[in-house]
Amino acid sequence: MTILRSATDPRWVEVALSDLDATLADHAHCEKKAVATAVKLVADHPDRPGLVRTLARLAQEELQHFLAMITEVERRGRTLPPDQGDPYVQQLLKLVRSGAGRLVDQLLVGAFIEARSCERMRLLGERLPDERLRELYRRLAQSEAGHETLFVDLAVEVGAEAAGGKGEAAVRARLDELAEAEAAIAAALPLLPRMH
Amino acid sequence: MTILRSATDPRWVEVALSDLDATLADHAHCEKKAVATAVKLVADHPDRPGLVRTLARLAQEELQHFLAMITEVERRGRTLPPDQGDPYVQQLLKLVRSGAGRLVDQLLVGAFIEARSCERMRLLGERLPDERLRELYRRLAQSEAGHETLFVDLAVEVGAEAAGGKGEAAVRARLDELAEAEAAIAAALPLLPRMH
Repeated sequence: MTILRSATDPRWVEVALSDLDATLADHAHCEKKAVATAVKLVADHPDRPGLVRTLARLAQEELQHFLAMITEVERRGRTLPPDQGDPYVQQLLKLVRSGAGRLVDQLLVGAFIEARSCERMRLLGERLPDERLRELYRRLAQSEAGHETLFVDLAVEVGAEAAGGKGEAAVRARLDELAEAEAAIAAALPLLPRMH
Repeated sequence: MTILRSATDPRWVEVALSDLDATLADHAHCEKKAVATAVKLVADHPDRPGLVRTLARLAQEELQHFLAMITEVERRGRTLPPDQGDPYVQQLLKLVRSGAGRLVDQLLVGAFIEARSCERMRLLGERLPDERLRELYRRLAQSEAGHETLFVDLAVEVGAEAAGGKGEAAVRARLDELAEAEAAIAAALPLLPRMH
């Protein structure tokens, strides 16, 4: 079960495999940015112990994945190229409301990034020509599979804290809105050898 | 062996113990900022595989320490207060040169922050009234003890890459300069229930 409203264009995986160096490097950068985002949320909300602990543990896991990805990059005789930025994430972040809904939106955007990344890791885990890399991606997809729910649960917790049962319903409604927007963003982006 | 030119004022540990809630919370924030700094250096220098791997592993370890510290804060029935900022670190960062020496300086400043923090963790590990906390601080100090050298080694590597043996000598000379400055900064700051 996923919050995604659309499946990735089947041609994406061909493009990703056509320049695996670029895809692996972009994936490494994604893991690094996931760590930075989790630590920033911790820094901005020190008074929320549940969120702080959950995101600190998440950051540890993403660091583990980052290390796995740089090992693959190095194994191919490369170093990490500069981070090209991530138009998919940038467009999602534009949807984050300011004020009271900000943290809920940040967490829901986190859920979508995790969900879309995980979907694509799973595709790579099925289609990579190299058995060892396929296995690595299967493991990564499995490990990332819980993160979507983790972010949604944190968003619901924050929403319910602000407005009880009504708050939870509002978070679910916002999740629906963002799901439509995410599908549109993913569909409109060019297919490139990168995770999004 | 340490790069520090001065011992912490012996009265600091009394002040730190007099408001242990504040000291533990500040320590948690220090660990969080150590993670953020390591990840930022990784993001800024993706093309340096040695630095990237070393600092990603360091960030994992600091996250572990952060989790240990928030456990202690929660055990005392508290949540993390807002981060008050760190005048000691801010003053050290003002010494970072721009241009060619920037990365070397950032790494050397990292070495001093680790060295001073480790010295103080050791003091807490000797003086805390609670046996369990003493043991925790002994473990933390032991684990942090290698970080000073880790940062100095990275700085020497970066310096030597730029200018060979002459580069290494320049890094050692800069280390001496910064050691004097760090001792002066530490001596001039008020004694407060915080790590620096």
